[in-house]
Amino acid sequence: MCLSQVHAAINKQTAEGIKIIKRLINQRSTSTDACGIRECALLLKNIMSGLGIKAYLIETEGNPVVYGEVLSNEPDAPTLVLYNHYDVQPIGAETDWTTPPFSATEKDGRIYGRGAGDNKGQLAANLFGVSEYLRVNGQVPVNIKFIIEGEEEIGCPSFKRFLKNNKDLLKGDIVIICDSSIHSSGAPYMIYGVRGSLKLSLRSVTANTDHHSGNKGGVIPEAAWELVQVLASMYDKNYNVTIDGFYDGIIEPNNKELQWIDSIPYDPDELTAAYELAKPLSLSRREYYYRLMFRPTLSILGIKSGLVQNGGIPGAIPGSAQAILNIRFPYPQTVDHLFRAVEKHVKNINPGIEVIFHSSSPAARTKTDLPILNTIESALENAFGKKVIHLPSMGASWASFCLWEQVMNMPAVIIPYANIDENNHSPNENISINCFITGAHAIAEIIYALGNA
Amino acid sequence: MCLSQVHAAINKQTAEGIKIIKRLINQRSTSTDACGIRECALLLKNIMSGLGIKAYLIETEGNPVVYGEVLSNEPDAPTLVLYNHYDVQPIGAETDWTTPPFSATEKDGRIYGRGAGDNKGQLAANLFGVSEYLRVNGQVPVNIKFIIEGEEEIGCPSFKRFLKNNKDLLKGDIVIICDSSIHSSGAPYMIYGVRGSLKLSLRSVTANTDHHSGNKGGVIPEAAWELVQVLASMYDKNYNVTIDGFYDGIIEPNNKELQWIDSIPYDPDELTAAYELAKPLSLSRREYYYRLMFRPTLSILGIKSGLVQNGGIPGAIPGSAQAILNIRFPYPQTVDHLFRAVEKHVKNINPGIEVIFHSSSPAARTKTDLPILNTIESALENAFGKKVIHLPSMGASWASFCLWEQVMNMPAVIIPYANIDENNHSPNENISINCFITGAHAIAEIIYALGNA
Repeated sequence: MCLSQVHAAINKQTAEGIKIIKRLINQRSTSTDACGIRECALLLKNIMSGLGIKAYLIETEGNPVVYGEVLSNEPDAPTLVLYNHYDVQPIGAETDWTTPPFSATEKDGRIYGRGAGDNKGQLAANLFGVSEYLRVNGQVPVNIKFIIEGEEEIGCPSFKRFLKNNKDLLKGDIVIICDSSIHSSGAPYMIYGVRGSLKLSLRSVTANTDHHSGNKGGVIPEAAWELVQVLASMYDKNYNVTIDGFYDGIIEPNNKELQWIDSIPYDPDELTAAYELAKPLSLSRREYYYRLMFRPTLSILGIKSGLVQNGGIPGAIPGSAQAILNIRFPYPQTVDHLFRAVEKHVKNINPGIEVIFHSSSPAARTKTDLPILNTIESALENAFGKKVIHLPSMGASWASFCLWEQVMNMPAVIIPYANIDENNHSPNENISINCFITGAHAIAEIIYALGNA
Repeated sequence: MCLSQVHAAINKQTAEGIKIIKRLINQRSTSTDACGIRECALLLKNIMSGLGIKAYLIETEGNPVVYGEVLSNEPDAPTLVLYNHYDVQPIGAETDWTTPPFSATEKDGRIYGRGAGDNKGQLAANLFGVSEYLRVNGQVPVNIKFIIEGEEEIGCPSFKRFLKNNKDLLKGDIVIICDSSIHSSGAPYMIYGVRGSLKLSLRSVTANTDHHSGNKGGVIPEAAWELVQVLASMYDKNYNVTIDGFYDGIIEPNNKELQWIDSIPYDPDELTAAYELAKPLSLSRREYYYRLMFRPTLSILGIKSGLVQNGGIPGAIPGSAQAILNIRFPYPQTVDHLFRAVEKHVKNINPGIEVIFHSSSPAARTKTDLPILNTIESALENAFGKKVIHLPSMGASWASFCLWEQVMNMPAVIIPYANIDENNHSPNENISINCFITGAHAIAEIIYALGNA
């Protein structure tokens, strides 16, 4: 098999590849309102068939998954599963867009439109790379399975059941999730895990009505104070969480992971500016990534009590107060353990305060010592011409990531293709044509490398 | 002079008195939008003239004050100043009213309409009582000055200047403010002071934008935590304020005031139910009233950070957080002292948190050992047939109360006439005809008693 001809073909046929992105963008597929979902799934199936990929829709309890496969002639070929999604975020205010969101527009080396980066452009890169590989070589050295979901932007509600129902069909040696963006330097990421997420509320009710702060101030309990007292008891001044059991079961980074962390680009001044922080970030590189990947953290997403306005302040003591908290936690911590720890803590401090569960997503981490990951790493470095940045975990959560391990018992790795300014979930979403083409080269490299490992 | 004939006349002429209330209610006079203000002032002047009270408008920087006087023939007659206001609150949602708010309606022994209780009904009681006194006796034994303001419901912005500009005209031995409501038992109050009020904000800004709680949770400072930490530092678990200097300069109640407190009706179970509290009030009578009258208290009127909703919680760490605080403080504490104390405290804990002044009203207390107050007390007990409940101070604030002492150097006492369920500032405002008539009897008693003291 020849790889250099595949690269040459990808470069030569770029315009054909871009057509795939454009056709997909032009078919709206917003899962929040299910608008165009089935049309997009069918379009995608047709595009894939046209590229020589056997494709069909698999119905789920929700939106259909588009399944595709290109099987190898080699009897012992490994199986590579590629995960993408064809649904997109809503567009927000159309007036914030400089191009029509559902009409793909090429401009300044980028393709603009809803889904360009997240995730149609990255999906198209995989389709394009695989199809060029196939066209040049007439076959592939690995079995390739495409799993293209239609509910990613609404939290993958049907995906777990889908995996369970199609275990044999979907089985593979590794799943690569091509989503999110590469590093600003152009270096590729390999991301091996996600933090879990637990959203919950603390709710304090001291009276069923508000009270005049003059007539009652000082003689009745105040919901906001009670809430503040409990919240304050959860943290020390160094942002260490003081909830008993909060850090139970966390696994410290091993030497390899520490080395990886030490190689992640980190410029606190740049981040301070980019994050628009009031005070400069003072964490060391290790502290920064350690906290983000290996430690559970507790954030206040919102507090509400009474009325906050800068004029005409009514003198009312609110009878209730609520705070929404978000715990992000590393594998192998669990939602149950953390929720119970919070409940116990709150009960100890103030049993009158209610702890309300909202939603959760588990943490997961792929074993990082699998030989197949080294093969992929080399392939990526060939395609990108830069060293891979290894992230033991994202700080964020990703419900479907966890399912690969949980349901399929398969290792998963996130390999983003999009440019850092893809504006996903925002107006003027785009993918740079360079990133798209590099993605296609990357998947070709990976196929070749896995076939020759 | 004859008092019993005055009482008889008030009882006989009740229908005439009620006409005064109705005419005043029917002329809308909402100071928030200045609608009908001047019309009401002119109507009031005409009503007063018709009752034999010399009346005219005094222009201010804002709405006119209606001034009225009935002078005594006695050369050394004391001067009684009666304060009321003719402006009213907005009506809120008209659909919440069972009668038209600006069309006085008599029903079940009450007059309904905006301003019925606050303050047109109480004003009418004074006008009616004085005019009947005058009609029966042809003269009064005290000089009576009516000062009827048109900006009470918007915080009396012109009143201080008005007093300063008309010091000689308005001078008197005591001012009686007839506003608010009597005790639920029907007993009258004499209220000798008001707490001051200071409204301020604490504002915490850690970033100029919100941040993804997965990607940043644990590595950036969080505005809400910083605010919570500062707030929590202001209180101990027993609701004692831990701000240095917060209790500076407070005066403990003297024996007479303690006796008064011991005589104020207090049923914590009844209050728990009336206030709709989640936990029963456990303060003793003395603690309850001591806190409300003699101690500064610190309430949170509002906290806002991020978004609080029970579904679809976005995972964003808010970059800013704000709390609105209200300090209610007893005489002779000052706004300046307390604001500086808060500023200093916040600066010590977290100098990054901004302290913002919103508004204030001073504390005031009338000396309670003046003989004239004893005279008024007896008069009230004659009219109400019940013992006076003496309140050394209200828990609430009252900007214009303070001005009598501050600008005029005159003692002031609040003597409410309205029923406890007058629904002031609420839909279906009303005054019971009994309360109205008792108010008219009360002012007649007071005039008689002061003239014969």
